Amino acid sequence: MALDAMGADGGVSVTVSGALSALKDHPGDLEVVLVGKPEAVEPELSRLGAPEEGISIKSASEVVRMTDAPSSVLRHKRDASIRVCFDLHRAGEVDAVVSAGNSGATMAVGMVVMGRAPEVDRPALASIFPGLLSPTVILDVGANVDCTASMLAQFGFMGSVYAREVLGAKSPLVGLLSIGEEGGKGNLVVRQAYEHLKASSLNFAGNVEGRDVFSSEVSVVVCDGFVGNVCLKLSEGLLSAYNQLVKNEVMRDLRGRAGAMLLKPAFKRLANRMDYENFGGAPLLGINGVAYICHGASSPKAIASAIGLAMESVNTQVDKRVSEGLAQYRGELLGEPETKSE
Amino acid sequence: MALDAMGADGGVSVTVSGALSALKDHPGDLEVVLVGKPEAVEPELSRLGAPEEGISIKSASEVVRMTDAPSSVLRHKRDASIRVCFDLHRAGEVDAVVSAGNSGATMAVGMVVMGRAPEVDRPALASIFPGLLSPTVILDVGANVDCTASMLAQFGFMGSVYAREVLGAKSPLVGLLSIGEEGGKGNLVVRQAYEHLKASSLNFAGNVEGRDVFSSEVSVVVCDGFVGNVCLKLSEGLLSAYNQLVKNEVMRDLRGRAGAMLLKPAFKRLANRMDYENFGGAPLLGINGVAYICHGASSPKAIASAIGLAMESVNTQVDKRVSEGLAQYRGELLGEPETKSE
Repeated sequence: MALDAMGADGGVSVTVSGALSALKDHPGDLEVVLVGKPEAVEPELSRLGAPEEGISIKSASEVVRMTDAPSSVLRHKRDASIRVCFDLHRAGEVDAVVSAGNSGATMAVGMVVMGRAPEVDRPALASIFPGLLSPTVILDVGANVDCTASMLAQFGFMGSVYAREVLGAKSPLVGLLSIGEEGGKGNLVVRQAYEHLKASSLNFAGNVEGRDVFSSEVSVVVCDGFVGNVCLKLSEGLLSAYNQLVKNEVMRDLRGRAGAMLLKPAFKRLANRMDYENFGGAPLLGINGVAYICHGASSPKAIASAIGLAMESVNTQVDKRVSEGLAQYRGELLGEPETKSE
Repeated sequence: MALDAMGADGGVSVTVSGALSALKDHPGDLEVVLVGKPEAVEPELSRLGAPEEGISIKSASEVVRMTDAPSSVLRHKRDASIRVCFDLHRAGEVDAVVSAGNSGATMAVGMVVMGRAPEVDRPALASIFPGLLSPTVILDVGANVDCTASMLAQFGFMGSVYAREVLGAKSPLVGLLSIGEEGGKGNLVVRQAYEHLKASSLNFAGNVEGRDVFSSEVSVVVCDGFVGNVCLKLSEGLLSAYNQLVKNEVMRDLRGRAGAMLLKPAFKRLANRMDYENFGGAPLLGINGVAYICHGASSPKAIASAIGLAMESVNTQVDKRVSEGLAQYRGELLGEPETKSE
C-alpha cells in the first residue's frame, strides 16, 4: 500500500500516524510505503515509534500543493509524492494508493498512470455516505462534471459492484438521483439515464430524491460529478453549521452546559457513527488499480480507515470486478446473453 | 391575499389556522381569501373561531392532488383551488397567492395565468435557507431543470433584487454554486455563467461550494433547478436523519434522558432558528404577480410566515423590481448605459 505522506492538511504527522494505526488494525497483513520527503517523514516516524516491520519510506522530492492544476502536476511534477505512489502501483510494487492530497491532481495522475480499466469509458470517484440504515455509495462526486446518460448508467454498474464486493451488500439497490420519484422527472440526461438503468440487469430502484440519500434502502446513488460534489460539500457544510448552532445554543446558560455534560457520551457515539472518518476515503473506480482519495482535512483515523477499505478492495479485486460489471452491461446493450457470470 | 385552503398535507385545519395566525400577526393590514370547498373550509373556520373581519371564503370545486401532472391540471381542472387563486390574482382581486399544494402544478398554473414579467425569460423558484450569518436565497430550486448560462445569470439578478427588497440585504453578494472556488471550475454551463456574472453589475462573489451555502456571506446562491432541488431535499433529509440519530443515541440511557431534559430550551431555540417554518414559503420570481409556494408538510406557522413574506413582496412591488433588474441586465449586455436606476 503506497500512502502519499505529504498530502494532508494536517501534515506528515497525520499521514504517518494514520499508517501506524492501520498497521495496528491489520497486524501482519499490511505493508505501508510512506511516499514523500525523507527529511520530513523520518523524524515523524521515529517520534511516533515505528514498528520494525510493515513500514518503509520511498523518497519523492516534490509536493503537490492544493492550488496546483492537475494538468501541470502531470506535466511538470514527475517526482511528486502522489506521482511516485502511482508509479509504484503501476510497477506492481504496491497494490493500492491512498492519498489525502489535492484530489483533482490525484484523480488525474491516477487515471493517466494506471489507465482506464477494460470496458470503462470514464472512471468515477465514489463517496461513501453513512446512512440511517446502511452506508450508501454515491457516484460520481467529482471526476466527471458533464455526463451523458450512458456514463450515468455505467456509474450504476460500477457502484453496484463496489457495494457488493467491498461493502457486502447482497444485491445492491441502485437509485438515480433526481427531483421526483417518477421516471419522467429530472433533467434531460437524467431522464435518458432512467431508461438505460431500467432496461439493465441492475437492481434498479428508480429515481431517488435528495431527502432519500440518508434514509432509503438504496446502496448506490447515481449522479453526475457536479451534482455529487455539490451534495458532498453541502452535507459537510450543513452538519458543521448545525453543530455550531447547537453548541452556541447549548453553551448559553448553566442549564445548557449541565445538559451538555450529561449528553457527552451520547454525542460521542453519534459522532462516531456519522463521522466520515469511518469511511475515510473515496474510491476512484474504473482505473487499472486501487486508489482511495481522502479528504484534505483527514484525521489519522480517516487515513487508517481508507487504508482498510483499500485492503478490502485489493482482496476482492474490485477493479477486475468493475470491468466485468461493465462488460456485462455492454453485453446487455448488444442484446447478447451475459458472457460473464459470478 | 389568496390562500389555497385545500393544498397542504395536513389538510384544511393547517391552512385555516395558518391564515388566522397571520391575521393576528398583521392586524388591520391583511385580508385573506380562503380558496377551496366551502363545505370543508367553513366548519374549520367556525371551529377555530373566525374573526369578524379580514377573512373570507371563495368557492372552488376541485382539488389538485399531489400526483396530478401540472399539464393536466392546467387543461382539465379549471375550478381547482390553486387555479381559482391565480384567477383572482390576475383579476386584481388579490395581491398575492400562497399555496402549500402540488408545487409543480402551482408553478405551472402561476406562470400560465399570470404570465412572465417583462424582460424575464424564465421564472424561477427561490428558496430561503436559514444560514449561520444571514438567510440565503438559493435559486432556481425546481422551476427549470435544464438551464443555459444566460438563464443562470438572470437568476442572479432576480435573486439579488429579492434579497435586497424583501430580505433587506444592502448590496447582496451573489455566488454561483460550483465545485471549486476558481472561475474555471464547474460544468460547461456553470463556467459560462461565471463569465456572464463576472461581467455584470452584480456584487458577484464568484463560485461558492456546497459547504459555503450555510456559512458564507453570500445572500444569493445561483444554480439550475435540478441542482437546487436536490440541495433543498438533501438538506431536509440530512437534518431529519441527523435528528433521528441524535434522538436514538440520547434516549438510550438515563443519563442521556436527563441531559435531554436540561437541553430542551436550547433545542427549542435552535429549532426555532433553523426551522424552515420561519421562511415558510418559496417565492416564484419572474411572474407578473406575487406567489409563494410552501412545503406540502407545512405547519400553520409556516403558512403564516409565507403570508408575511408575501405581504412584504407586495409592499416592495418585488415583481416590478425584478423586471427592472432584468432590464438593467439586458442593457448591460447591449453595452448601453443603465437605463433604470433605483
